[in-house]
Amino acid sequence: MAEPEQPTEPAFADDQTLLPAIAQDAATGRVLMLAYMNRAAYRETLNTGRAVYYSRSRQGLWRKGDTSGHHQQVRRILVDCDRDTILLEVDQLGPGACHNGYESCFYREATADGLRVIAERTFDPDVTYGG
Amino acid sequence: MAEPEQPTEPAFADDQTLLPAIAQDAATGRVLMLAYMNRAAYRETLNTGRAVYYSRSRQGLWRKGDTSGHHQQVRRILVDCDRDTILLEVDQLGPGACHNGYESCFYREATADGLRVIAERTFDPDVTYGG
Repeated sequence: MAEPEQPTEPAFADDQTLLPAIAQDAATGRVLMLAYMNRAAYRETLNTGRAVYYSRSRQGLWRKGDTSGHHQQVRRILVDCDRDTILLEVDQLGPGACHNGYESCFYREATADGLRVIAERTFDPDVTYGG
Repeated sequence: MAEPEQPTEPAFADDQTLLPAIAQDAATGRVLMLAYMNRAAYRETLNTGRAVYYSRSRQGLWRKGDTSGHHQQVRRILVDCDRDTILLEVDQLGPGACHNGYESCFYREATADGLRVIAERTFDPDVTYGG
């Protein structure tokens, strides 16, 4: 009898399925952002070594860094137990991943008193994104 | 004129909204898992300092560790720029976060040749979960 086939990629049910993808700085371990991938974004990322997401607002592939120049070079792609989350270990090019001008999108702490900014801006988003 | 009110928590549109929540080991920086939170899970986590998620399969609050004993003590809760992803910095109690017996749910690397296990099991899930 043939062996049951092993899964070869994340569990995209179809071409429209979106799975969350975490980008983590490979050097510092800092979690930079979470975005979504469809199968096409996943495969382009795997094939090119550059992070490509699916933009839910623009409804199309989002080649991270095309506007800002802040590309993410992918060192390793990990998949979780249920194959429904992707973890990218990346080299973040430029000063940061966040469109608000921070290294990481997680620049606020949630406390009982509300949200508190805990990081410094690393670039001016008005300059980078043409204000 | 009054100042516009600052957001005080993640962007739960209503009590049913689920947002992804990443758990990261506060000591090692390792990304352990991704699960989902509704507003009740988020607030209980914030108030108790212990990670509580919403289980999509069981459709109810999931107090991580209730079966396995592998609780997550929350050191810090971060929220991303769009307030639609939560990052928990945790102390993972016990040998791991993954129900398959690994420290992290991200124990496989995705390659052009398929998925490859890159971690060692840290516990026997059949024993822990009464398999």
